Amino acid sequence: MATPIESPSTTVAETDVTDDPEAVTPPTDDLTSDERALLVDNLRYVLDGRWRATRDLVRESADRSDLLPDPSRTLDEARTRILAEMRELAQNGFAAAGFAADHGGSGDVGASITAIEMLGYADLSLMVKAGVQWGLFGGAVENLGTARHHDRYVTAIINLDLLGCFAMTETGHGSNVQALETTATYDAATEEFVIDSPTPSARKDYIGGAAEHAQVAAVFAQLITGGPGEEPSSRGVHCFVVPIRDENGDDLPGVTTSDCGYKGGLAGVDNGRITFDQVRVPAENLLNRYADVEADGTYTSPIENPNRRFFTMLGTLIRGRVSVAATAGAAGRKALTLATRYGLVRKQFEAPEGTDEIVVMDYLAHQRKLLPLIAKSYAIACAQNELTSELHEVQSGSAGSGPDGRPADDSDAGRQRQLESDAAGLKAYATWHASHTINVCREACGGAGYLDENQLSIMRGDIDVFTTFEGDNTVLTQLVGKELLSAYADDVQGLSTAGWVRFVVGMARDVVVEKTAARQVVQTLLEGSDEDTEKSNLTNRGTQIRLFRNREDHLIRTCAQRLRVALDDGNDAFEVFNNAQDHLLKVGRARTERVVLEAFIQAINDCDSRSAAEVLGKVCDLFVYSALESDLSWFLMHRQVSVERAKAIRRGVNELCTELRPHARSLVDAFGVPEELLGAAMLSNG
Amino acid sequence: MATPIESPSTTVAETDVTDDPEAVTPPTDDLTSDERALLVDNLRYVLDGRWRATRDLVRESADRSDLLPDPSRTLDEARTRILAEMRELAQNGFAAAGFAADHGGSGDVGASITAIEMLGYADLSLMVKAGVQWGLFGGAVENLGTARHHDRYVTAIINLDLLGCFAMTETGHGSNVQALETTATYDAATEEFVIDSPTPSARKDYIGGAAEHAQVAAVFAQLITGGPGEEPSSRGVHCFVVPIRDENGDDLPGVTTSDCGYKGGLAGVDNGRITFDQVRVPAENLLNRYADVEADGTYTSPIENPNRRFFTMLGTLIRGRVSVAATAGAAGRKALTLATRYGLVRKQFEAPEGTDEIVVMDYLAHQRKLLPLIAKSYAIACAQNELTSELHEVQSGSAGSGPDGRPADDSDAGRQRQLESDAAGLKAYATWHASHTINVCREACGGAGYLDENQLSIMRGDIDVFTTFEGDNTVLTQLVGKELLSAYADDVQGLSTAGWVRFVVGMARDVVVEKTAARQVVQTLLEGSDEDTEKSNLTNRGTQIRLFRNREDHLIRTCAQRLRVALDDGNDAFEVFNNAQDHLLKVGRARTERVVLEAFIQAINDCDSRSAAEVLGKVCDLFVYSALESDLSWFLMHRQVSVERAKAIRRGVNELCTELRPHARSLVDAFGVPEELLGAAMLSNG
Repeated sequence: MATPIESPSTTVAETDVTDDPEAVTPPTDDLTSDERALLVDNLRYVLDGRWRATRDLVRESADRSDLLPDPSRTLDEARTRILAEMRELAQNGFAAAGFAADHGGSGDVGASITAIEMLGYADLSLMVKAGVQWGLFGGAVENLGTARHHDRYVTAIINLDLLGCFAMTETGHGSNVQALETTATYDAATEEFVIDSPTPSARKDYIGGAAEHAQVAAVFAQLITGGPGEEPSSRGVHCFVVPIRDENGDDLPGVTTSDCGYKGGLAGVDNGRITFDQVRVPAENLLNRYADVEADGTYTSPIENPNRRFFTMLGTLIRGRVSVAATAGAAGRKALTLATRYGLVRKQFEAPEGTDEIVVMDYLAHQRKLLPLIAKSYAIACAQNELTSELHEVQSGSAGSGPDGRPADDSDAGRQRQLESDAAGLKAYATWHASHTINVCREACGGAGYLDENQLSIMRGDIDVFTTFEGDNTVLTQLVGKELLSAYADDVQGLSTAGWVRFVVGMARDVVVEKTAARQVVQTLLEGSDEDTEKSNLTNRGTQIRLFRNREDHLIRTCAQRLRVALDDGNDAFEVFNNAQDHLLKVGRARTERVVLEAFIQAINDCDSRSAAEVLGKVCDLFVYSALESDLSWFLMHRQVSVERAKAIRRGVNELCTELRPHARSLVDAFGVPEELLGAAMLSNG
Repeated sequence: MATPIESPSTTVAETDVTDDPEAVTPPTDDLTSDERALLVDNLRYVLDGRWRATRDLVRESADRSDLLPDPSRTLDEARTRILAEMRELAQNGFAAAGFAADHGGSGDVGASITAIEMLGYADLSLMVKAGVQWGLFGGAVENLGTARHHDRYVTAIINLDLLGCFAMTETGHGSNVQALETTATYDAATEEFVIDSPTPSARKDYIGGAAEHAQVAAVFAQLITGGPGEEPSSRGVHCFVVPIRDENGDDLPGVTTSDCGYKGGLAGVDNGRITFDQVRVPAENLLNRYADVEADGTYTSPIENPNRRFFTMLGTLIRGRVSVAATAGAAGRKALTLATRYGLVRKQFEAPEGTDEIVVMDYLAHQRKLLPLIAKSYAIACAQNELTSELHEVQSGSAGSGPDGRPADDSDAGRQRQLESDAAGLKAYATWHASHTINVCREACGGAGYLDENQLSIMRGDIDVFTTFEGDNTVLTQLVGKELLSAYADDVQGLSTAGWVRFVVGMARDVVVEKTAARQVVQTLLEGSDEDTEKSNLTNRGTQIRLFRNREDHLIRTCAQRLRVALDDGNDAFEVFNNAQDHLLKVGRARTERVVLEAFIQAINDCDSRSAAEVLGKVCDLFVYSALESDLSWFLMHRQVSVERAKAIRRGVNELCTELRPHARSLVDAFGVPEELLGAAMLSNG
């Protein structure tokens, strides 16, 4: 990958000259304004990744302050406004990329996700609403449906002639999707499915679009059918297209929708509830890519194992999860841009000599609040780019499924599985980071940060639910750990926790620590570093990777061992699992952090600009040092770092903050948040 | 202190029988319902502390769901509603306790703060609005004014005939109050002060009440005056009563108010801005307890040193800070009650055997989310009770100031100074805890937690600003550290950071580590424990105290040493300070945590119920273990715990979670949040 022409983009340079708050304070770095603009361009090139053209298109079209959330809107007004914005997006062809060319789209999954991510710079309600329509609902039709659904629905979904919602979660079941209670019973007499909510807890809940706008729902329900002479039985969760509203917006017969009302944020998204009372839909409304019901009620599926079938279906839907992770990254970057810019104009307490007060960004405590979060945001952005790219590859067919809907071969199945685990891990890691970051940014701006006119408080409310929707972060992190410990074994999915423990304990010991092959750059760096991490300099990239890898390996090994010993001692398998749950979660976190680091290193390695790579190297060091610092007790307890090195790590964070302080503005400028979306009174009030 | 009669309160028992969600699941502890009710009563007795009668009064009158925030209200409606609720409080004599009997109140400072704290169970907007009127504005008149102000204003403040606001913060200055820009220039010709905002950044900002309701403002401004033949000069920040609105609510001549508009929460509080253009007020409007201006412009004050004068004035205003800390504690306890109750009804994922799913509170990861926060909330509640009590003593005159406004003697001055530092430390510690806790509780309730109908999302928005108003938490934590390092020396206040460094470095070394004498129970426990902490069991209370004290002492000593060495090396004093800022903050946090632990231990020691004391002992252990766990790297790096002990601490947190799990419901019931204020649809939906 090549960086752009090594000359400053004039647009960026001009913006900076007229608008740079640092211009009013003595310059704190040695770069000329041209050099700085060039640095920003090159940093942005790295961050923007493969779909940088898409990013620039969205930047250009979204550079409008009227896209920002307006807290004075009523709930109704906010919802209406977001729908209007979505229609505008549709008119501009925003959604086509997410659907295959032969279904009526333009077939660029990566561009589709990147475009949705960029909405995170404008309004998270818009992103969620768009994500529901095109990512979740559209994605279900696209990935679980067949030609009859694609022909009938996809164009209408793209241009918003058909508004849909994604009715998976129920009042009683969120994380445990296999236990959903809604039923879809096949009636051979009429060749229909009867959709029903048998209990109060079967009510579909928190469904974006269900309160007002959605005309149809992709309903996840237990499919109940039997062939001739066969007792009807449940075949597990499948997805059905169910109309819920007529043209006037009234509930169709048997459908009862209601409104979730006010929420902690995302005012523009009309979350609602749906219950079904024996609602009949034609048999063809079953999204039948992975399973079908013949006219006589006979159930067929190319995937025999019900658990495998279920998880294959779910697996095609990870686009939503990937988009959520990506958008959280964008939201965090925007918050850091606002807080850093404020930190560069806000002064408080007099300088030691003279009457002028000190810019708060010059305080170590303030640097320590913001700079490590900026560093982590860089690392996450690079990992996100890789994840989006991998999803693109897998879903674009090169590593796709065979004609029967099953992965073409085992290596593809493994790749899909790996992708799902990486998506789960990064979704949790990135959304927790975003939620924490926006909170810290709000605090770093004091009272100003609490005023909606400065956006951070709105973003804080909006981002909050990202940590628990599209997969609860704790459950997802645990999933990563479970996959690692059971070496992605197929038969593990769908096992109870106790069953999973028994499986892991029965596994061959060495399978457990197997890992995906290291990429070339990582291999090279590892080879160039001492196996004894204490002997290498801590800024040695190979040593950094080694520390992260050693932690992951150690945690996996000891977790497996712990389960084995506990079960051998005759303990109840659930208790064995439960007592090790924090250990398992730590496995998941350590794994994801290692993946994030290696992606960041790859991106730096691919960067052709020496000055940008140099700054990125410092940013990477700060990411590593602060990651080590926040888990220092583990490294010390497991003698992975010495006490002396631990102290050096704490000092190192401070030193790196000081070194990166002059680049603070450049680092956030490189995020490329459109200027109009950074409207905040505090940035002009000082 | 005696606990109440050792028999269950029937009210509590009845509530539990009809309403206990645990009733539908197999009982997880061995207590009968009577025993449980008694335990809850006794735990509550400890938590309620000295002003338990006040707590019960507020509980009784606030047990109304109509007091809960209603997100469907417009900003106007929310403000109007809160004002109406405040008028109701006033009618019921809510505010009298905060004012001296001879000023028109009933003179019970502790009761006044406790009552405000209890509003945190209902609506944080109400607490803030009440806190502004009676705590901040009323407190300024009460504590900075003299008879002429008390006679004229106090009754009207109590009964809301006069609505005021507290106009300290400016757009340009929050933490650095000494640098406020608003001026109050004395005009001897008319015997008036001229209040003026000379610059845009002098605008009063974020002022609760300024947007709509306040008729007058307590304005903090630089007093400029000179006696006959003397050049007028600034005498530092003083406080003035300035009318801002007429009877119609219109701005008075020269006053311009505006509205801060929508915020991240606290919808019922009308925060606004005020600028003054040469506004004239009579000389008597100077709150002149600590300084006065004679008719001819001569400035007089019983406190000669301007810094000391300024900090003495500020010091009398800590009631607001103490109330904010107290209320944050209440809000955190309410959130934990909601999340714990939900965790006891919400099930997810099947049990290993059988078809029933597992109550999420039975997962270790869920216990680890909530139980350590419950434990910390207990500890903080005990520390808060002590702080409120100490404030009561100091402000009730037994340790009060002499007739000239100065502390009666040096020991009283020291006590006041200590109180201010403790209030700063606990405010930061408790509000960060509350903000974090409410966030974790929201996440622990998943999608349900995000719906306003379940309150947590509203509380999350409301609590957010508590970490930065009434003193930014980082600045306050630093203040604690600075006070410790400079041994509360009087001449340090008002020094620049660089000046402070030079002072500390010049101090006698042993003064630095001096600490307030240990209380008896702590002394006894220390004597009964081994000086080598590794040799004692970690559940030994003396060992726990020793670990916390050793950390504090070590941090203070090494911080002083670090400053000394760095300055000796000829470095710039501000840089020396800045490089050690994280160290200094750590001093502040460690100190506060030690104070919190000792207060908790004191409360357990005072508890007469054996069963309650036993449970509290476990709770205290969990507080200690998780506090140690979250700072484990420090303890390891400084060889205060061994690697083996560190591992035992991690294990210990898990084990204590398991041990306390059966008491989860009792622990939150003991918080005594009125049942009607726990309205949350998720608790009935399951």
